[in-house]
Amino acid sequence: MRLLFKGAGILAWKDEDFHYIPEGFLGVDGDTIDYIGADRPEAPYDREKDMRGKLLIPGLVNCHCHAAMTLLRGVGSDLPLDRWLFEAVFPVEDRMKTDDFIAGNELAVLEMLASGVTSFSDMYMEPQTLIELNEQVGMKVNLTRVVQAFDPAEPPEKNYRIPESLALFDQFHGCQNGRVRVDFGVHAEYTINDAVTRYYADQIRPYREKGARVQLHLSETRKEHEECIARHGLTPAAWFEKMGIFDLPAAAAHCVWCTPADLDILKAHGVCPIHNPTSNLKLGSGFAPVPEMLERGLCVALGTDGAASNNNLNLFEEMHIAAIGINGYLMDPELMPPATLLRMATVNGAALQGRDDTGRLAVGMKADIAAIDMDRPHLYPAFEPMPMLVYAAQASDVYMTMVDGKILYENGEYLTIDREKAMFDAKRAVKRLYGG
Amino acid sequence: MRLLFKGAGILAWKDEDFHYIPEGFLGVDGDTIDYIGADRPEAPYDREKDMRGKLLIPGLVNCHCHAAMTLLRGVGSDLPLDRWLFEAVFPVEDRMKTDDFIAGNELAVLEMLASGVTSFSDMYMEPQTLIELNEQVGMKVNLTRVVQAFDPAEPPEKNYRIPESLALFDQFHGCQNGRVRVDFGVHAEYTINDAVTRYYADQIRPYREKGARVQLHLSETRKEHEECIARHGLTPAAWFEKMGIFDLPAAAAHCVWCTPADLDILKAHGVCPIHNPTSNLKLGSGFAPVPEMLERGLCVALGTDGAASNNNLNLFEEMHIAAIGINGYLMDPELMPPATLLRMATVNGAALQGRDDTGRLAVGMKADIAAIDMDRPHLYPAFEPMPMLVYAAQASDVYMTMVDGKILYENGEYLTIDREKAMFDAKRAVKRLYGG
Repeated sequence: MRLLFKGAGILAWKDEDFHYIPEGFLGVDGDTIDYIGADRPEAPYDREKDMRGKLLIPGLVNCHCHAAMTLLRGVGSDLPLDRWLFEAVFPVEDRMKTDDFIAGNELAVLEMLASGVTSFSDMYMEPQTLIELNEQVGMKVNLTRVVQAFDPAEPPEKNYRIPESLALFDQFHGCQNGRVRVDFGVHAEYTINDAVTRYYADQIRPYREKGARVQLHLSETRKEHEECIARHGLTPAAWFEKMGIFDLPAAAAHCVWCTPADLDILKAHGVCPIHNPTSNLKLGSGFAPVPEMLERGLCVALGTDGAASNNNLNLFEEMHIAAIGINGYLMDPELMPPATLLRMATVNGAALQGRDDTGRLAVGMKADIAAIDMDRPHLYPAFEPMPMLVYAAQASDVYMTMVDGKILYENGEYLTIDREKAMFDAKRAVKRLYGG
Repeated sequence: MRLLFKGAGILAWKDEDFHYIPEGFLGVDGDTIDYIGADRPEAPYDREKDMRGKLLIPGLVNCHCHAAMTLLRGVGSDLPLDRWLFEAVFPVEDRMKTDDFIAGNELAVLEMLASGVTSFSDMYMEPQTLIELNEQVGMKVNLTRVVQAFDPAEPPEKNYRIPESLALFDQFHGCQNGRVRVDFGVHAEYTINDAVTRYYADQIRPYREKGARVQLHLSETRKEHEECIARHGLTPAAWFEKMGIFDLPAAAAHCVWCTPADLDILKAHGVCPIHNPTSNLKLGSGFAPVPEMLERGLCVALGTDGAASNNNLNLFEEMHIAAIGINGYLMDPELMPPATLLRMATVNGAALQGRDDTGRLAVGMKADIAAIDMDRPHLYPAFEPMPMLVYAAQASDVYMTMVDGKILYENGEYLTIDREKAMFDAKRAVKRLYGG
């Protein structure tokens, strides 16, 4: 099937930068973009789609998410951080069963598809439920079975999570035509110990050749950062480096309290930081040193974190809040240009996920596309697309979401997931988890 | 006409606080709420409207806006602040004529109605255009003809803006059944001088008895704040106090650099600060001391500022960014509870505008209501309405906007303004102002 979008604005990628075509043509052959230009291509297409008034942008990449936590949206909102975790979140998570993970994942997928996300990285329990759901949905997802260790006396060989993590990779990495990637994962420094981490690093090191990558949380809160120093005499970044985890390409969520020396460690190992501004601000964790990261040439991407601490999965908000939050905090309106934010949410996100064939609109790239409906009063006038996307657009301005050349969402309709069933499943799960 | 909303969630106002009714009835008689309760009222209504799955909240109040600046949305986004003003904004404003103000106001009204705003305060040129437009649209608006003085040699009696400002009040204050209120206005300390300000204060003081109020900008940037001290030996708040402007109730936009002593001045005179978080952060102005304002019992409201520095007129974003911005900046997730934000956007906004019969859903109040469509994946589950509204909702979740018992917007349709004509007018104005 060859499909031609015509009349659309196109935010193409050219010479390592965004290149705006106000009205043009974008051709898709199977799962791949085969034409972009202001003029009509010579070759005929099987189907043409009139996209006047729409702007085609690369699909957004949500690099840090706990998808099924949608079922914990807004839980315990009035509690302080530690009570929120121990009194509101953990007891619910403890009750969650396979059907709940399925339902939470469905709800997350509905929300992300409607907001232009084509790919996301997930870190949560029962990742197989997400793989299975995605077989039908058709998004791209990097998922992981994270390793933790709560009993310091337990020898690493007995940690059941490690073989599960390796098996998940062996069984599913690259499946669904590459749409599913399995990452290795360490939850965080404060939920594991030296022996298990070193052992896990040894186990996963050989997978480097197979393109394996790592997800982890890093220096999210001051408490976490300082307690790690007290425990190990090292910052979390220095400790992970010493343990050998950074021998694989890694994606480090948060990095709020990373020092300049920590950023140098990330740079030396090609670790990609994920900025989660909404969650960091809402929980009072602070402002990540994003300008310093960018200055060092780190591949900084964006994430929503889970809906429990956000409370949605809306990358338009993350772009917006990242931009103005840092400009306001450092009192410099030029620190975070809109193009940088869009790059973080697309190109950098794809690179962080180890996907070199997506994240930008160019011939030969996978057709992972979001279409923005520009015919909205709050988007007019739009002299330049980038400030419009970052400062003025809402997630609900997304008209269409396409992954690998297949339209998954269009004009309010989901084409690969049953919205009513998903909402029904979510309501049933909420009843089960919370009673009533 | 008596209209009964049935089956809706209702965020009612009771005992000086929000009171949530999960499923109830709200009756409207003419322009006034005449019933709120969980049970069906005994008296019959002329018309019943099924609102299951919707949440009724007080209409939002945007207390600081330059509506027609929608035509300058995103202009000069890449320029630093001073070049942005002098090279991008001022030359366009200089070209603006009556038709442009009309078109810019129309665009702003479309955007605000679709996002649940029922009342706004405006400070821009040719306010009569907005009065005329609103005759047809039916929103509530506090507007002003601001006084400025650029020639220090000019005697106050010669400042043509002062008689215009007084005449605007005399002619239009309270018109459209009270929906239009005329405020007096001083742009800011740095665009006026002692003599003109004292003279203006003397002129407007007698209007206090007629319910007149004042709009002004106060300590928005550090530069403005410090230059005022250098010029007068007083902060802007102390200077306005000395000039006699605070002898009338006033609404002070921004207040980013207000000192504790300034806040005491505001408190002593009942001046209401307007927090504009998006604009303050985007322009790198800084974080206003909102917790200190609230601690003093100041009536803090919210505003979007103009679309040129925002770049939209979306009070849901303002509530969200105000909440998480301050929590993140001061690293305390409990500083800005969601209910406080909603109060700022409704109750406090109405009080700031001098409207004591709106801003809350209670019997006897004007029927100024926004209905939120709760049947959205990103709003489920919604255990409590307040965190859902502040952290998860988008402006596009607004299903209906009603002012004085009249539905002005419902399910994407505008009932008192022609969307197509307004967009056409905006496009014509943009062409006129920018060429092309």
